[in-house]
Amino acid sequence: MKQLEHVGIAVKDLEAAIAQYSTLLNTPCYKQEEVKSQEVATAFFKLKDQKIELLAATSPTSPIAKFLDRNGEGIHHLAFEVDDIAAEVDRLASDGFTPLQEKPFRGADNKLVAFFHPKTTHGVLVEICQEIR
Amino acid sequence: MKQLEHVGIAVKDLEAAIAQYSTLLNTPCYKQEEVKSQEVATAFFKLKDQKIELLAATSPTSPIAKFLDRNGEGIHHLAFEVDDIAAEVDRLASDGFTPLQEKPFRGADNKLVAFFHPKTTHGVLVEICQEIR
Repeated sequence: MKQLEHVGIAVKDLEAAIAQYSTLLNTPCYKQEEVKSQEVATAFFKLKDQKIELLAATSPTSPIAKFLDRNGEGIHHLAFEVDDIAAEVDRLASDGFTPLQEKPFRGADNKLVAFFHPKTTHGVLVEICQEIR
Repeated sequence: MKQLEHVGIAVKDLEAAIAQYSTLLNTPCYKQEEVKSQEVATAFFKLKDQKIELLAATSPTSPIAKFLDRNGEGIHHLAFEVDDIAAEVDRLASDGFTPLQEKPFRGADNKLVAFFHPKTTHGVLVEICQEIR
């Protein structure tokens, strides 16, 4: 793991959350992007080398809609940047972490991403991500 | 806010979590510290400029014990580094965020810290922190 790349926060009302986080972080949202495969709308803030990603559901079947139903708003995942996502998935799987997909897929922000189940990370949904070159 | 300084994760068994996060992050825990005023035992990992802080309760009255009872293990707070914590508490309070303490107090890792209620941050317990010089 190279660094913490972003923290994902699940919200109900993306526009309201963008306004609130612009004030909280004292910096504007610099990018909004929809990820149709995941049925999410995202909004990004940057502080030095890290990003805060707000995530809202665009459909009732979105993973974010299910998360909000179960947990309400709050931190959804931690994402760590890696150099070689395939190798890192293999390393983590062989160390007993549980991948949530067959293989890495295209997420927001021009990244290949893979998620690991919270049961093996003390309750944290962990994403690893690699920039698509 | 200068940068995301650390992410705090509430765990039940600190030693088990240290072992698991050493493997997950592929880096050893570099510091353990007890914060008696908060009744927590902490363990820190570093990735580039960010830290992951594992937090375990040292007493049933610890805020972490209460969090674990309500939520189970998982991400507890996001901490942002600031230059002037008193000024930043004033700014956030005047913008409608709700401080959880009368004034900043000494936390782990040689920091003055202040927390803000999740109700004004879309479900995220936000800490701001300033290095004690």
